[in-house]
Amino acid sequence: MIYFNSDYMEGAHPRILQRLAETNFEQTMGYSEDPHCERAASLVRKACASPDVAVHFLVGGTQSNLTVISAALRPHQSVISPQTGHISEHETGAIEAVGHKVNTLPTSDGKITAEQIDALVTAHWSDPSFEHIPQPKMVYLSYPTELGTIYSKAELEAISTICRKHDLILFVDGARLGYGLASPENDIDISFLAAHCDVFTIGGTKVGALFGEAIVIRNDALKKDFRYIIKQKGGMLAKGRLLGIQFECLFEDNLYAELSNHAISLAMQLKQGLTNLGIPFLIDSPTNQQFPILPNALIENLKDRYSFSQWKRMDNERTAVRICTSWATKEEAVTGLLQAIKTELARN
Amino acid sequence: MIYFNSDYMEGAHPRILQRLAETNFEQTMGYSEDPHCERAASLVRKACASPDVAVHFLVGGTQSNLTVISAALRPHQSVISPQTGHISEHETGAIEAVGHKVNTLPTSDGKITAEQIDALVTAHWSDPSFEHIPQPKMVYLSYPTELGTIYSKAELEAISTICRKHDLILFVDGARLGYGLASPENDIDISFLAAHCDVFTIGGTKVGALFGEAIVIRNDALKKDFRYIIKQKGGMLAKGRLLGIQFECLFEDNLYAELSNHAISLAMQLKQGLTNLGIPFLIDSPTNQQFPILPNALIENLKDRYSFSQWKRMDNERTAVRICTSWATKEEAVTGLLQAIKTELARN
Amino acid sequence: MIYFNSDYMEGAHPRILQRLAETNFEQTMGYSEDPHCERAASLVRKACASPDVAVHFLVGGTQSNLTVISAALRPHQSVISPQTGHISEHETGAIEAVGHKVNTLPTSDGKITAEQIDALVTAHWSDPSFEHIPQPKMVYLSYPTELGTIYSKAELEAISTICRKHDLILFVDGARLGYGLASPENDIDISFLAAHCDVFTIGGTKVGALFGEAIVIRNDALKKDFRYIIKQKGGMLAKGRLLGIQFECLFEDNLYAELSNHAISLAMQLKQGLTNLGIPFLIDSPTNQQFPILPNALIENLKDRYSFSQWKRMDNERTAVRICTSWATKEEAVTGLLQAIKTELARN
Amino acid sequence: MIYFNSDYMEGAHPRILQRLAETNFEQTMGYSEDPHCERAASLVRKACASPDVAVHFLVGGTQSNLTVISAALRPHQSVISPQTGHISEHETGAIEAVGHKVNTLPTSDGKITAEQIDALVTAHWSDPSFEHIPQPKMVYLSYPTELGTIYSKAELEAISTICRKHDLILFVDGARLGYGLASPENDIDISFLAAHCDVFTIGGTKVGALFGEAIVIRNDALKKDFRYIIKQKGGMLAKGRLLGIQFECLFEDNLYAELSNHAISLAMQLKQGLTNLGIPFLIDSPTNQQFPILPNALIENLKDRYSFSQWKRMDNERTAVRICTSWATKEEAVTGLLQAIKTELARN
Repeated sequence: MIYFNSDYMEGAHPRILQRLAETNFEQTMGYSEDPHCERAASLVRKACASPDVAVHFLVGGTQSNLTVISAALRPHQSVISPQTGHISEHETGAIEAVGHKVNTLPTSDGKITAEQIDALVTAHWSDPSFEHIPQPKMVYLSYPTELGTIYSKAELEAISTICRKHDLILFVDGARLGYGLASPENDIDISFLAAHCDVFTIGGTKVGALFGEAIVIRNDALKKDFRYIIKQKGGMLAKGRLLGIQFECLFEDNLYAELSNHAISLAMQLKQGLTNLGIPFLIDSPTNQQFPILPNALIENLKDRYSFSQWKRMDNERTAVRICTSWATKEEAVTGLLQAIKTELARN
Repeated sequence: MIYFNSDYMEGAHPRILQRLAETNFEQTMGYSEDPHCERAASLVRKACASPDVAVHFLVGGTQSNLTVISAALRPHQSVISPQTGHISEHETGAIEAVGHKVNTLPTSDGKITAEQIDALVTAHWSDPSFEHIPQPKMVYLSYPTELGTIYSKAELEAISTICRKHDLILFVDGARLGYGLASPENDIDISFLAAHCDVFTIGGTKVGALFGEAIVIRNDALKKDFRYIIKQKGGMLAKGRLLGIQFECLFEDNLYAELSNHAISLAMQLKQGLTNLGIPFLIDSPTNQQFPILPNALIENLKDRYSFSQWKRMDNERTAVRICTSWATKEEAVTGLLQAIKTELARN
Repeated sequence: MIYFNSDYMEGAHPRILQRLAETNFEQTMGYSEDPHCERAASLVRKACASPDVAVHFLVGGTQSNLTVISAALRPHQSVISPQTGHISEHETGAIEAVGHKVNTLPTSDGKITAEQIDALVTAHWSDPSFEHIPQPKMVYLSYPTELGTIYSKAELEAISTICRKHDLILFVDGARLGYGLASPENDIDISFLAAHCDVFTIGGTKVGALFGEAIVIRNDALKKDFRYIIKQKGGMLAKGRLLGIQFECLFEDNLYAELSNHAISLAMQLKQGLTNLGIPFLIDSPTNQQFPILPNALIENLKDRYSFSQWKRMDNERTAVRICTSWATKEEAVTGLLQAIKTELARN
Repeated sequence: MIYFNSDYMEGAHPRILQRLAETNFEQTMGYSEDPHCERAASLVRKACASPDVAVHFLVGGTQSNLTVISAALRPHQSVISPQTGHISEHETGAIEAVGHKVNTLPTSDGKITAEQIDALVTAHWSDPSFEHIPQPKMVYLSYPTELGTIYSKAELEAISTICRKHDLILFVDGARLGYGLASPENDIDISFLAAHCDVFTIGGTKVGALFGEAIVIRNDALKKDFRYIIKQKGGMLAKGRLLGIQFECLFEDNLYAELSNHAISLAMQLKQGLTNLGIPFLIDSPTNQQFPILPNALIENLKDRYSFSQWKRMDNERTAVRICTSWATKEEAVTGLLQAIKTELARN
């Protein structure tokens, strides 16, 4: 059985496991106050081309999101998110649980625009009852989005500009950042994010680490006292070095990019192969999540050999599925799947 | 340089690292819905001698505490804790941040008594303004305590009885549970906790795991929807199997007890050695944290070779320090420290 | 200048002021533990035809909503509301601030249907990632709605049935309840609400009181400890009798119905008059809020004599406005306004 | 039966009721955006001798406290309070419910000192684990305290100085402010508070109003967006003018001082009378709350004629009680009580 259900189905890249073993009996102080975290932060700052950003390492994505948002907003402020944003749809109300409304904007491809943000904020300030409405203060978006799409440099610049115009904090969730940067359509790099966001994350969990998200903060106000908030929200790992060691591995010798490229290369191979077979897609994704629309009968016939998520029922005959590649996906898994689909299609 | 500062200065027992490596390319579903978590939970239930307890695995202690307490209490309810309790003093207000007052009881040894609990709850219900005061609804205590002490079976039975009398939820924080159970003074086991608590934790972080706390729930009301709360608070690990694998290792072949015994054996050796040297203690601890009172000059002279926390300044001449042993402490570290102290004392 | 901007522009019905004066030097215990609150609660229970409902009096609507919802839900649970619901749009995120997501349903007339609720809840429980999504546990709706519309008995029965099927708490916000009950289209009474809701409110602020909302609770679980939550949220009025006295006035001698009928009678007169003048409406409201669509020039020409809220810009020429009548509106104000509009229309 | 149980047992000063009646049919905009609130704020600013303070009017004290504290603190910050502070002991965890720890300092007379504050804050910043502890950021104290005592000008200056040194927000709860200012021992005025606090309240509820607290803000950061927070916490009164009208009455023609002086004059008469009878006091209070220690038998014999709170059981024979005078207390009530006690004492 081969699983394409998500990009967090295996452990970690072997180099990471090896490094954990090599450092296992080092004695270090807890709570990320150790040389590994220090060096990892330094490597991330280098990738950001900024000596001034603050870098923190947390275990998970929901934890990172709620910690950042709780640290950034006053009680009456809300965060703007695409309707499909992770904080909007898949964190069990974590943001509301720390007191903030998620202001959702409609989207068909997982992305939002500077114009939508501008309109929402302008409407707020022109409403005579504005004090009866949460004040929009932050923009949250994902790169890539939950639908695998990515923003262009121009789109992000426009969003960054509108955020500065309205004094909004721009927060980019990079849980799958590597897979966005490795996309053939990508035209940004980490230093672009460091220059244009107030805060963003670099996801490790889905890109070769056992776990771990780096939070990069450019906004000075948000830097202040951030570690208190990490601790309060339960995100301060006792053996923090485990995060440092993993990000050291990922950000030295280019491993993060290498693993990302691997996954994207296979995703593009899959996309091309499916396209060649005449399979339509729910959305044109340039990253590691692909959403082909398959006949239900075909899905049924594959189910003992290949597993993936059923994403959206299109009609009585067809379902859009999500197929994820990752740093750990084997090329033969992809070619095998393509061959199996081809065979199934030929049978009918 | 040898560190005795805490029991989380190294990585994990090698058997755990090895198991992580062996299972690294298994593909499993996320969020602890995998065979390793299932088997680990089954091993924990066996140790509890209860097929009915719910078992969840979380990464850290503060996270576990805030998740349990948030899940258990209605907004107006408070949790009773010793003044020195971890939730009271070292979680940056995590419990208040999820809305609840921590009702502290004075303690000199880190423990609280059934009588103290009874008095506090009785005072609440006899106050004519009781609705103006948070309603005490949960008792939190640690086994062992932050001062290394442990409750006797009789003390815990009395507390459990008073909790049932007043319809209080009893929550035992077992971040260092193994070190309590391995103490020569211990007279309980895990099945005793499972029978007498509504919920308790079994700490892995400090007892040989990279990270991880098992939350064991006996109270049916608290079992309901618990995973929603884990997710909301940011505690649901994507690659949940990492927790399962570690607890499998710890709870098969008795590894948890073995590692705990090792730390306690060295702690007792240290305690006896210091006693023989005429060193007094801040508190008589039967577990892996020892609090000897040392001359400041001696501490100064050791500081390039041995590190430990300065716990409490006693007077101008002496300071109580905390020396922790752990599963990873080497016997020669303890004998070396004892010898160094002996030599220093002899020099004066 | 005559204002139709809202139904809370004047003080209170004179009988209420008189009663406050008469009772002014009575000495009573605070926090609603006085004979006036007791008698008022008894009158409300009588109107509910239920000796078993709990009745509490709070000062304001947002306060009542956040207190009820905070008391009712566990942290991971959400409340379903029409997109236009007061808790969704006009309480500055008060519900999120006590930790809960507001799950909005689309609506064109301010109402939601049993089918919508059923679909949302069914979708939740059939989602394989349901634990990653807040659990819908309560339905909030207003009677009348923010758009002046009311639910029929059949619609409410259907909603109540679906709530019981899915174990949802049904909460009806009656900030303008009197104006709903007095509507010519109304086919329910207070006892119907008491029988079909878990909790509902009876608004005093907009129907003749200086301030005050009665919260009526049928659900036993929600009754428990409710006063603690009132106090914690800042809603326990020191001189609670002020609320009791006002609700005594409103619920003896039928004053609440009388004042409501007055406002509705004038609203219907206004609606008929505008209809006769050929004025269209944004929505067909049978209660005290009317939403005629007026030419901008006409609004401009009236603005020194008549004030009302601009609700929605329809096009370059016309704007929907909100005109509220209330217990305090004078008949000559309505006839004057109609005459003025007629004159303006004739001028063109 | 005559009640001395609290200072909120009657309605309001008749001039306030009369003014409410006179203005009853004025039409004004809601939410304190009306001429009465504007004029009241102006009168308060004049009393503060500061044109720059922001003034808001809320209904109650707990509401005011939780709104101010929620507006002022970031999530990881705590508020320092005397152990006996209202926010610490009598608000059902309202401060914790908005996420903040109340850091209590021991006190025997209800007051705290600059030295205590300095020590607590210094300890925080010198703790190597300071990020694991809520950051003290605000000082809360009451003038007068819950025990009737007041701070001297010198004490408040010292506290203000220490707050500025440590960048702490100083918040003075003036629920009974008038009674403090009218005390023979008082040496400050409102303008002193406006100059030395970041924020303070002027209580109306206990000093002649039906209800109402004025919040006075000097700190610019705290002024920003304060009305959003009021609305979110349920404290924005729809008919806000009711607060404005009452504070207009209280702050024109010196009514606030006059009513306060009345209560204090009677309290001092009571205190002197009891002292003359040889009655000891729990505490030497110079304000309207007096805490005499009475024989239980005497209390028993008075109980059908005079009511007051039993405050603290001293021993088997005697109980400290709380006797409150207020703006509404009649002189004959005090002389009657003194006479009754004298008679009772003489009978034995």
